[in-house]
Amino acid sequence: MPQQKLRLALFGSGRIGQVHARNLADHPDIELALISDPFIEGARTLAAQTGGRAVSDPAEVFAEPGLDGVIIASPTPTHVDLMSQAAAHGLAVLCEKPIDLDITTVLECRDNIREHQVPIMLGFNRRFDPNFKAVRDEVVAGAIGTLEQLTIISRDPAPAPRDYIEASGGIFRDMTIHDLDIARFFIPNIVEVSAVGSALFSADIKSLNDFDTTTTTLRGADGEIVTIINSRHCAYGYDQRIEAFGSTGMLTAGNVSATTVRRYDATGTEQAGPCLPFFLERYAAAYRAELDAFVQAIRAGGTCSPGFDDGVAALVLADAAAESATTGKTVSVVDALR
Amino acid sequence: MPQQKLRLALFGSGRIGQVHARNLADHPDIELALISDPFIEGARTLAAQTGGRAVSDPAEVFAEPGLDGVIIASPTPTHVDLMSQAAAHGLAVLCEKPIDLDITTVLECRDNIREHQVPIMLGFNRRFDPNFKAVRDEVVAGAIGTLEQLTIISRDPAPAPRDYIEASGGIFRDMTIHDLDIARFFIPNIVEVSAVGSALFSADIKSLNDFDTTTTTLRGADGEIVTIINSRHCAYGYDQRIEAFGSTGMLTAGNVSATTVRRYDATGTEQAGPCLPFFLERYAAAYRAELDAFVQAIRAGGTCSPGFDDGVAALVLADAAAESATTGKTVSVVDALR
Amino acid sequence: MPQQKLRLALFGSGRIGQVHARNLADHPDIELALISDPFIEGARTLAAQTGGRAVSDPAEVFAEPGLDGVIIASPTPTHVDLMSQAAAHGLAVLCEKPIDLDITTVLECRDNIREHQVPIMLGFNRRFDPNFKAVRDEVVAGAIGTLEQLTIISRDPAPAPRDYIEASGGIFRDMTIHDLDIARFFIPNIVEVSAVGSALFSADIKSLNDFDTTTTTLRGADGEIVTIINSRHCAYGYDQRIEAFGSTGMLTAGNVSATTVRRYDATGTEQAGPCLPFFLERYAAAYRAELDAFVQAIRAGGTCSPGFDDGVAALVLADAAAESATTGKTVSVVDALR
Amino acid sequence: MPQQKLRLALFGSGRIGQVHARNLADHPDIELALISDPFIEGARTLAAQTGGRAVSDPAEVFAEPGLDGVIIASPTPTHVDLMSQAAAHGLAVLCEKPIDLDITTVLECRDNIREHQVPIMLGFNRRFDPNFKAVRDEVVAGAIGTLEQLTIISRDPAPAPRDYIEASGGIFRDMTIHDLDIARFFIPNIVEVSAVGSALFSADIKSLNDFDTTTTTLRGADGEIVTIINSRHCAYGYDQRIEAFGSTGMLTAGNVSATTVRRYDATGTEQAGPCLPFFLERYAAAYRAELDAFVQAIRAGGTCSPGFDDGVAALVLADAAAESATTGKTVSVVDALR
Repeated sequence: MPQQKLRLALFGSGRIGQVHARNLADHPDIELALISDPFIEGARTLAAQTGGRAVSDPAEVFAEPGLDGVIIASPTPTHVDLMSQAAAHGLAVLCEKPIDLDITTVLECRDNIREHQVPIMLGFNRRFDPNFKAVRDEVVAGAIGTLEQLTIISRDPAPAPRDYIEASGGIFRDMTIHDLDIARFFIPNIVEVSAVGSALFSADIKSLNDFDTTTTTLRGADGEIVTIINSRHCAYGYDQRIEAFGSTGMLTAGNVSATTVRRYDATGTEQAGPCLPFFLERYAAAYRAELDAFVQAIRAGGTCSPGFDDGVAALVLADAAAESATTGKTVSVVDALR
Repeated sequence: MPQQKLRLALFGSGRIGQVHARNLADHPDIELALISDPFIEGARTLAAQTGGRAVSDPAEVFAEPGLDGVIIASPTPTHVDLMSQAAAHGLAVLCEKPIDLDITTVLECRDNIREHQVPIMLGFNRRFDPNFKAVRDEVVAGAIGTLEQLTIISRDPAPAPRDYIEASGGIFRDMTIHDLDIARFFIPNIVEVSAVGSALFSADIKSLNDFDTTTTTLRGADGEIVTIINSRHCAYGYDQRIEAFGSTGMLTAGNVSATTVRRYDATGTEQAGPCLPFFLERYAAAYRAELDAFVQAIRAGGTCSPGFDDGVAALVLADAAAESATTGKTVSVVDALR
Repeated sequence: MPQQKLRLALFGSGRIGQVHARNLADHPDIELALISDPFIEGARTLAAQTGGRAVSDPAEVFAEPGLDGVIIASPTPTHVDLMSQAAAHGLAVLCEKPIDLDITTVLECRDNIREHQVPIMLGFNRRFDPNFKAVRDEVVAGAIGTLEQLTIISRDPAPAPRDYIEASGGIFRDMTIHDLDIARFFIPNIVEVSAVGSALFSADIKSLNDFDTTTTTLRGADGEIVTIINSRHCAYGYDQRIEAFGSTGMLTAGNVSATTVRRYDATGTEQAGPCLPFFLERYAAAYRAELDAFVQAIRAGGTCSPGFDDGVAALVLADAAAESATTGKTVSVVDALR
Repeated sequence: MPQQKLRLALFGSGRIGQVHARNLADHPDIELALISDPFIEGARTLAAQTGGRAVSDPAEVFAEPGLDGVIIASPTPTHVDLMSQAAAHGLAVLCEKPIDLDITTVLECRDNIREHQVPIMLGFNRRFDPNFKAVRDEVVAGAIGTLEQLTIISRDPAPAPRDYIEASGGIFRDMTIHDLDIARFFIPNIVEVSAVGSALFSADIKSLNDFDTTTTTLRGADGEIVTIINSRHCAYGYDQRIEAFGSTGMLTAGNVSATTVRRYDATGTEQAGPCLPFFLERYAAAYRAELDAFVQAIRAGGTCSPGFDDGVAALVLADAAAESATTGKTVSVVDALR
């Protein structure tokens, strides 16, 4: 007998909200019940495409009977409040990163929601990328012996607008945080963080005392070294690669092109197409797999992976990276992550 | 205002029928109304997953009011009759290749259905593969100057069972026919066919006087040369590649792996995964795009690409290849394709 | 105790002669004693760079005391006479392909020189290419099970001048002959030849009733199929690739670039440099290894590989290909190669 | 008129000395006059292969009339003394890295030899690697706009013996120093150094308080960020790669395999061979090009690139990396490199 569909509500009808809305609408086990956005026109336009009732007030969501969970894809400052309310109403939560830009607020939120024991999943979608996941599965299976070095290269195609950058918490909390979570996907127990940053090409970013170009180095509890290389721009598309180096070999996951076509002409040979443009394309499969995992977590009722504590840990690492890039000192995160 | 969904029926609940049924069920513009199979259990099992009413008698399909078209994925010997009936009922047709193994029967069918002027699309799904299509689009756009040589490498992972092979019409009509259509996708006007074949590894195929290994060479009206290399087995998966060589460059479309993961160890470096297992995986996107094109053809009411005449041409070329492989002589197809 | 250097003479100071002269001069076991060319200025210029005495009359070579062997890199029409004289003088011979364009002349030459029992090596240098040789060594070692299909793609960067083409014996005897020998490197016993050809881009070649674009298909005694794809031009350099497909896998040898550099920019990713320009660069290592093998053959005194009979066989196959491309019929070479 | 050969002497008949000896012997513009090693048997064995007179006492070298220069490939502790004597005798010097492990000694040496104004070249051979050099030439030519990030991945195949490690000055001064020079090849003006290190797999290295696994980060005067990833072992061979990322694109130089052969079988596809085993193979062409550059420097009489000051700078950076890895603080090298 087929299980009843899960009834879910979505907060946020912006870029990420739209991705989730389409995946919710297409998912055979999900009924997209409501789309909530104070900008009600956004919610309505989206609902017209994907189904679900458009509402402007979150209270309407929490008043809805028979809901199983919510996806929080609204602006970061709303995350903690929505998550807390959802937990209080016994709703499972899939929340986009970051939980909040302030670690104190995040830890308070954790205390508040702990008693409700609802499944909380953090939207670190890259863990569900089939390429990264395949590397991690093989590493866990011992395919390269002991993992010693992890290299993550992650470059956005172009800087976000000044407004976005200004509210983002800086490159480490906004962009590197994804790579920090991928680092913890492979090496959960990180003890030290170092980082250097420069503002090389974006006058906006420079004027905000932020960085557009960084290298972040982590050390795991067993001495493993993670190196994360970031840039806020990339001429050839969205550059997303990892290399896991171990005692008996290496596994890499490279960029994804739209096709397998290669070009040969007087200028050169074997030219592939550009990388996929940005995360919507590159991580399309990851977003769908993330939603599958959320459905399973609700059904199974246990803890989620990545869960709330993964969101905490990534923010702690991002804070440490920001501090290190400013002070020039390696920052221990042993106490903060205890 | 959204258009009304097209109501379609499916003939056949076997391997290919199942692919179509799932795509029909998932397509936002289609209602899968009926699944017809004399093996009614197959139709019922499939309909339970995808929706639609299971029927055993094709007459029930043709009696159904309000149908827009049919997908014919039943065994080859049923194709001509179902296509003719569908056309007589004014239904659009998407028919799996081949139309029939006998060219006379195919040409009679063409005469019979011509008056009904319904859209007829042939299931040469590879034309819709994003990789092959991208190469062809660029060739048409002049990216490699004048197309001079086309090389198609196409190997199945393992021979089909003896029963299948016996009824298949031989490797040229069953397997090479897809490559012959891809040849015509690039060079529609073929004038000559040569082929050589061997039975190297399959005792079944040898005992049927069929080939498991072939090379087929075509010449286009402007002297272009197409080379098709086939094998009925392949240790590393489903090998499907093309190379289009022109006066100013070359474009290739390579195999598809499940991920971008590469392995480095003591035995070697840069090892990618095996090719995708077989056509269901490799051409999954192609089947979906084919269905999109069928929907568009029904809506637009014009001729289909690939259409009935493409099915005729591919069979003529396959017959010529079979003849050439037996006689050792190049076969002109100018008259047959006039 | 180090062995005495071999004293060798070189016929021909043209493009290939110059390659040999430099390799002879650099080889630690060889003394380049004479360079012979009726165009004495060519011989003198070359000798000034590489050492050796320049002579215009071949008789001076055969009068030279203490010679061990000769390299024949003079025009094709001189090959048979020089080879015969060298053999009669007890000199080992390394002769550039082809022995002659006329098979009757070649067979007479074979009869003439047989009694002298000197080592005769044919200049099919590609057998010594490290990439092709590695594939062949692995195939012989069983790395891909039973060899079933061999695909050879071989394209020159640009057509030779009209004069050269006119005297060349046509594309099969001049260009394909190298690929035919590589086919026999893997599958020595060929029984059938088919070929198609077109003149697509070179008015000179067309006016000479020659082809600039061909596909040649061979069948081995065990049914193996070889496919050779040739073009007289190639926009991205000298395209030289092979694929050996067997029952348990495939081995390929790809093109060679000057460096491992890859370029990523807005037009695409992973672009390698052009192929090496032509055979002098691509087969530089092969020419040196060929000379090593010649030295070893002289020292060991046995038969050479590739030897005279390999030159005969390649010419027989080239003649058969030319016949097949004209008649449209598969040509058996069983009798000719008996 | 051909120039007179340069008469050179070699100090050291060990592994690197042997590489130089063979290249000296093969070089058309060089006469290898003497090989000096206190272990006279080593010098004699080598001289028997390459020519040159074997001597045990360096004084014999400096007493030799008509010498043009020396190559110093003896143990590190001898470098400063031999270089100083050579300079005092007016001999050009090609000295293997490092000049010395102690920066004070190096700076004194610089003061001592400055007055003699002889060409001093440092043996940072990787600058002459055709792959790295091609990337650098293109970067200088503006092919990727402004250089923003340089990533260097450099892994030895296996740790050196304990004795070697103990005398090596540690991973930064012994191994990373090559990468630090490559960093300066692209970005000469480095201002800051950070490093982290672990001893993950070598008990010897751990017991010496050295690291076997490190990440080093440099910042250039214009904010460019260099990331160097090192390991003392690598299961798939000698891993030597660079990525130069700029405002309009990226250029990479990958590993080198012995052939272009790729393997396809049931375990995967496109497998290349292992990386070349170690620096003797990988940088064979670089050593030859380095010698060419030395010859040109002697002929031209100007300064060398890389020269003495490049050796100083690399050591300063290595010292800073070692300090940073110990203290956890970013180290400024502005004063030290002024």
